[in-house]
Amino acid sequence: MSENTMKIAVLAGDGIGPEVMAEALKVLSVAEQKFSVKFNFDAKDVGGAAIDNHGEALPKSTVAACEAADAILFGSVGGPKWANLPAQEQPERCALLGLRGHFDLFSNLRPARIYPGLEALSPLREDIAKSGFDTLVVRELTSGIYFGQPKGRSGEGEETYGFDTMRYSKKEIRRIAKIAFEAALKRGSKVHSIDKANVLQTSVLWREVVEEVAKDYPSVSLEHMYIDNAAMQLIRYPNQFDVMLCSNLMGDIISDECAMITGSMGLLPSASINEAGFGMYEPAGGSAPDIAGKGIANPIAQILSASMMLRFSFNRGDIADAIEKAVVQTLNDGYLTGELLAPEKQDQAKTTSQVGDYIANLLSAS
Amino acid sequence: MSENTMKIAVLAGDGIGPEVMAEALKVLSVAEQKFSVKFNFDAKDVGGAAIDNHGEALPKSTVAACEAADAILFGSVGGPKWANLPAQEQPERCALLGLRGHFDLFSNLRPARIYPGLEALSPLREDIAKSGFDTLVVRELTSGIYFGQPKGRSGEGEETYGFDTMRYSKKEIRRIAKIAFEAALKRGSKVHSIDKANVLQTSVLWREVVEEVAKDYPSVSLEHMYIDNAAMQLIRYPNQFDVMLCSNLMGDIISDECAMITGSMGLLPSASINEAGFGMYEPAGGSAPDIAGKGIANPIAQILSASMMLRFSFNRGDIADAIEKAVVQTLNDGYLTGELLAPEKQDQAKTTSQVGDYIANLLSAS
Ligand SMILES: [Mg+2]
Ligand SMILES: [Mg+2]
Repeated sequence: MSENTMKIAVLAGDGIGPEVMAEALKVLSVAEQKFSVKFNFDAKDVGGAAIDNHGEALPKSTVAACEAADAILFGSVGGPKWANLPAQEQPERCALLGLRGHFDLFSNLRPARIYPGLEALSPLREDIAKSGFDTLVVRELTSGIYFGQPKGRSGEGEETYGFDTMRYSKKEIRRIAKIAFEAALKRGSKVHSIDKANVLQTSVLWREVVEEVAKDYPSVSLEHMYIDNAAMQLIRYPNQFDVMLCSNLMGDIISDECAMITGSMGLLPSASINEAGFGMYEPAGGSAPDIAGKGIANPIAQILSASMMLRFSFNRGDIADAIEKAVVQTLNDGYLTGELLAPEKQDQAKTTSQVGDYIANLLSAS
Repeated sequence: MSENTMKIAVLAGDGIGPEVMAEALKVLSVAEQKFSVKFNFDAKDVGGAAIDNHGEALPKSTVAACEAADAILFGSVGGPKWANLPAQEQPERCALLGLRGHFDLFSNLRPARIYPGLEALSPLREDIAKSGFDTLVVRELTSGIYFGQPKGRSGEGEETYGFDTMRYSKKEIRRIAKIAFEAALKRGSKVHSIDKANVLQTSVLWREVVEEVAKDYPSVSLEHMYIDNAAMQLIRYPNQFDVMLCSNLMGDIISDECAMITGSMGLLPSASINEAGFGMYEPAGGSAPDIAGKGIANPIAQILSASMMLRFSFNRGDIADAIEKAVVQTLNDGYLTGELLAPEKQDQAKTTSQVGDYIANLLSAS
């Protein structure tokens, strides 16, 4: 990318994707004015929409646009219309796994936060929720026990056994650890590395390499924590965590637990990043076909995905901070879509575009 | 055991072990009267106490007493006095792993419960804590990825990799599943089997065998749940769970999460059981050397361990129910040791023997 021009492949996809993407682009347009930058948006079909228009969920033209871009802003894919296709043609599998594989997006970044004013949505006790929770799970996504070989079944009769291999190389551990420490520099300068080094050899190596990487980040504090302890600590002392560095399986568990702790999973963005810093940014939730087209979907996860993109792929923490400040203000003002409101307050629910406008205006006025 | 005589090896151990064990035996003595049964207690040294008196943490005489008994009631072992011994002579490792191995105690049963009146101790939101939580984690303890072979390190330079093998045979899955379904018959008749069958071959086999075992228990409902989803659901909808059937790694995580959800980990008993139904029963907490000898330790986990023993090894759910009812009443009456009381209420704290007496009296009067 040139200094102030950022090329973004915009893949809105299916369900609520296009509606919430429109609000993210609205906010980015305001940021363009405000920060004197230029976004070049290249919108392409993906998922079910791409199956309908091009016969496949991830057309070559979409991949080519992503290759030509500096980052991918992704909406969501899938829906009942394509649910009966063979597994390997499904929008989710085809588009998401396809893009991850093509760009080697080995790291998954999942922030989770209890927003001021939304503490009551958290399933945690009031005093604990109010003590604060603002964490980023950095999960390795392409190795570990989900992919390790050999994996299968052997033996006969009652001695038949299933087996899976957990496996990590130094190289794999080092690159995900670097992502975590880099992210910590942009946040609270603290990394908790999650493992089970008292019983797993993979974790022993994990710990060694993470210690090595930590030496390059003297301003970031490092603590090792066993996965079972982390799963407990998150419930009782959630505010101790900043960045949580996890292997694939452990990150799968921890990131979902973190999301649940916020009580507002529809607000959460996510990112998948490769070694070159190229990334795909998308809401952690799905395409929500049940509410698509009604103008009631919450656009905040998509807007925060755009803000993550600015922070992580474009190193523009200043713009990201401004957008996030507007989002925090919006939530704190109680300017909310229906799913964040109690049943008796549904008459106060704002629409998708109202929330997008509100955030865009706050950003503009900031 | 003969019909009404139950032979119990009593291994009080170190730290608070002897103090809390005394209260458990007090309660069992009342039960003897009340239910016209006979307990034969055979007290033996274990852990640090056995190192001091016999030169090893698990003397042959102790093992022999356990072999001659119908069940083992265990206290706790370890403390600073023996902390500098070589790893393989440590009280915990030597005594606990020794007994587990000798008797093939492959299943770990960890109940967790939010008691009426103690909801405020739970880190969960008040309405969620009050909705109830009463679960039993059945964890496989001797196989899975902590023990599977091969396990180690290979390769060179940055390609050096660590590896561990998750492995379960049909036989291993079947025997732990049976324990879970049998336990469900004694509780809420519901089993959640926790796995990750969408990515792990071990879990695919796990699911198949659990389905087979379920056919023998038509009155027990079975639901499969992915580990990441279970870790979330426990925080938001904890009252949906009764028995949670878990592999070794997954049970390690889930049982600790369940314990934390109660907010009163000092109240939790546990059991380790073999295929013949022979078991060892002990508090889930440790020997707490910092408060040992002061008469302030909570005896309830030890008393509930005795009640679990009656339910699981002696099939005397009637006596177990009566003891647990007395414990629930005690907690609900606010007759509590200090660690369950807020700082400003410490003057109301009851001693170890006062709590034991109170429970014994309630049982006697019931
Ligand atoms: Mg997950
Ligand atoms: Mg554990």
